[in-house]
Amino acid sequence: MIDFPYLSDIVRKTDSKILMLVADGLGGAPAPDSRRSELESARIPNLNRLAQASSAGLTIPVAPGVAPGSGPGHLALFGYDPLRYLIGRGALEAIGIEMELRPGDVAARGNFATIDADGNLVDRRAGRIASELAAPLAERLAQVNLNGLNVAVEHVKDYRFVLRLRGEGLSDQLTETDPQLTGAPPLMVEPRAKGAAAAAAAANAFVEHAREALRDQEAANMVLLRGWSVAPDLPSFGASYALMPAAIAAYPMYRGLASIVGMRVLKTGGDFAAEVRTLREHWDEHDFFFLHYKNTDAAGEDGDFDKKRKALESLDEFVPALLDLKPDVLMVAGDHSTPSIMAAHSWHPVPFLLHSQWTLGEGVDRFNERDLRRGSLGIFEAKHIMSLALAHAGKLAKFGP
Amino acid sequence: MIDFPYLSDIVRKTDSKILMLVADGLGGAPAPDSRRSELESARIPNLNRLAQASSAGLTIPVAPGVAPGSGPGHLALFGYDPLRYLIGRGALEAIGIEMELRPGDVAARGNFATIDADGNLVDRRAGRIASELAAPLAERLAQVNLNGLNVAVEHVKDYRFVLRLRGEGLSDQLTETDPQLTGAPPLMVEPRAKGAAAAAAAANAFVEHAREALRDQEAANMVLLRGWSVAPDLPSFGASYALMPAAIAAYPMYRGLASIVGMRVLKTGGDFAAEVRTLREHWDEHDFFFLHYKNTDAAGEDGDFDKKRKALESLDEFVPALLDLKPDVLMVAGDHSTPSIMAAHSWHPVPFLLHSQWTLGEGVDRFNERDLRRGSLGIFEAKHIMSLALAHAGKLAKFGP
Repeated sequence: MIDFPYLSDIVRKTDSKILMLVADGLGGAPAPDSRRSELESARIPNLNRLAQASSAGLTIPVAPGVAPGSGPGHLALFGYDPLRYLIGRGALEAIGIEMELRPGDVAARGNFATIDADGNLVDRRAGRIASELAAPLAERLAQVNLNGLNVAVEHVKDYRFVLRLRGEGLSDQLTETDPQLTGAPPLMVEPRAKGAAAAAAAANAFVEHAREALRDQEAANMVLLRGWSVAPDLPSFGASYALMPAAIAAYPMYRGLASIVGMRVLKTGGDFAAEVRTLREHWDEHDFFFLHYKNTDAAGEDGDFDKKRKALESLDEFVPALLDLKPDVLMVAGDHSTPSIMAAHSWHPVPFLLHSQWTLGEGVDRFNERDLRRGSLGIFEAKHIMSLALAHAGKLAKFGP
Repeated sequence: MIDFPYLSDIVRKTDSKILMLVADGLGGAPAPDSRRSELESARIPNLNRLAQASSAGLTIPVAPGVAPGSGPGHLALFGYDPLRYLIGRGALEAIGIEMELRPGDVAARGNFATIDADGNLVDRRAGRIASELAAPLAERLAQVNLNGLNVAVEHVKDYRFVLRLRGEGLSDQLTETDPQLTGAPPLMVEPRAKGAAAAAAAANAFVEHAREALRDQEAANMVLLRGWSVAPDLPSFGASYALMPAAIAAYPMYRGLASIVGMRVLKTGGDFAAEVRTLREHWDEHDFFFLHYKNTDAAGEDGDFDKKRKALESLDEFVPALLDLKPDVLMVAGDHSTPSIMAAHSWHPVPFLLHSQWTLGEGVDRFNERDLRRGSLGIFEAKHIMSLALAHAGKLAKFGP
């Protein structure tokens, strides 16, 4: 039962519906000149009005000071303690390109890299080689033949690919080959636990085959492998919360994260308008929807304050359409903050609101980092969001007599 | 040492006195028209003045989103982790009518119910049969003879009674007989663990005897049993905190909760004025008092906003009398919220203040949900209240060298 064993005694199935809108990288920080954050600078009348009739606060995705990746950021929103349920980098990379990971498979994130005649690294990213050059090289690597193992390699983007090994007796208890500096040779894969020696040997054999296969290349003449990991094994979201959950996300990474907790992933289009159409079409079929909005994070990662402001304004325009569906609980959450001034994921608590028939407003007039601090939910761990949602949806009985 | 093993090294006995006033169901929520909560609508000058000279905040009784029953709500106030120390429904019901539960006894909550000629349930509460009709039927059930077991049945109220079995080899690992729906027969009691088979057989035998004994009844011709439980085994409150604790409560449920943690239960009258007289009379005998005020919860459960507002105003009038006793620490707390708009216990954080010589106010001018959010204690778990009380009473030495 995920992290709240007490819920299993009190959760009950009802007809009420919960809609969780996740604006990726939602939180921001004040710009030096205006001293206002992206949310404070944006024209977001619908979100502000919603905040006036909601319970509100700020969520801590993992722990104070910790900037989460997309994996832990979303797991927390789904109620999984992100410090307990870990997803390896290789597995997340595979999830992000919808590459199947079965129990027993081992995945690593791969980089194309450049080595000199002595075998020392010159560039750990092969000059950030373009996708159209890298993709055929990934296909070459997929031809590598390892005795008794199935080898799959799929290109991700630019210099990045995923390696997946499938077969008997594999392990993810392996060291990485990236020395994290140039001028030195790539490292050998070493077993980190008993029983991982065979997997280490297979990994080293793959690297040698790859070096051979890339010998004719100038830039991408070597590979680096890291983040060895197996498929995550997570309790079912639907079974834990007595919900029939569905996920709507234009980006594969978020579809993958939803699928590993057992949500039904709905086919949708490439932008948020298409996502909202999908939501409307399937509204009667599910009692929980995870709806993902990517543009806020993308703009924040670009360090483009104005683009993030506009992404928030675009999102705001969809709020009435979401309310038209009359969800019993509508949440606006983020998996982490991505302040434009940092151009990166950050540790800052993330704006959050929950709207239901029981939330009549609490004096928070605007949806931004500063105002939400005064909300009744305070600053709290994101993993508690689902309990709050279930409570407001009337899906939790009283605890204890 | 309850849940804070570190306290045992630093707690020390002193002459200072702690008074914990628990207003049951204290927290509320804004009404749709006024957008003010019961506390915000009430005229409570004494509580407001007290808040101006206190440390203040909001407490989470069990966990975010979780609405507690009276049992876990009070255990948390007493410093017992309510997720760790569980009280079964049968045991709490027995506690609530001051029915003795010894180690080894098993108690269940009973309902009178109505079955048809085929044995299917028609009404799970026997038409909410009145107490004057139900009480003699409970006496009938108390005559049931089970081989080698002592059977006690006590009427609670309306259609409810408590069954207590006493004897060798009993267990509370039993399933309930209430199918939670009508049109089906009551369920058989099944053992939920090894060693519970004999107890299950005894329970089923009781049900058969009860059915016979009630055969002449139209409405209450059957019983349903649930919440099988043994007496809770809790560490001593007094020993854990080096206190001589006393409890004053007009309602038996709260006297029972105090007695199971080892507080001395003082004989008192039927209303809060009598409770305050009892407090004054025994002031010199104890260094900790749990003083319970019921009317706030009762009004909230009735969904009567105005009655709850008045219950708060009545409570407010007693504050000067409490201050006259010059407690070193005076706390005003609640075991959970009971918003009138929900007419039920809720998960909302509960108003809390602590007044002592070390609390000189912190800009919180009024005692209500909205203002207390800005208090120095923030939103915190209720189980920490006792540590704060001990600290403010000078009863905790420094931790560590």
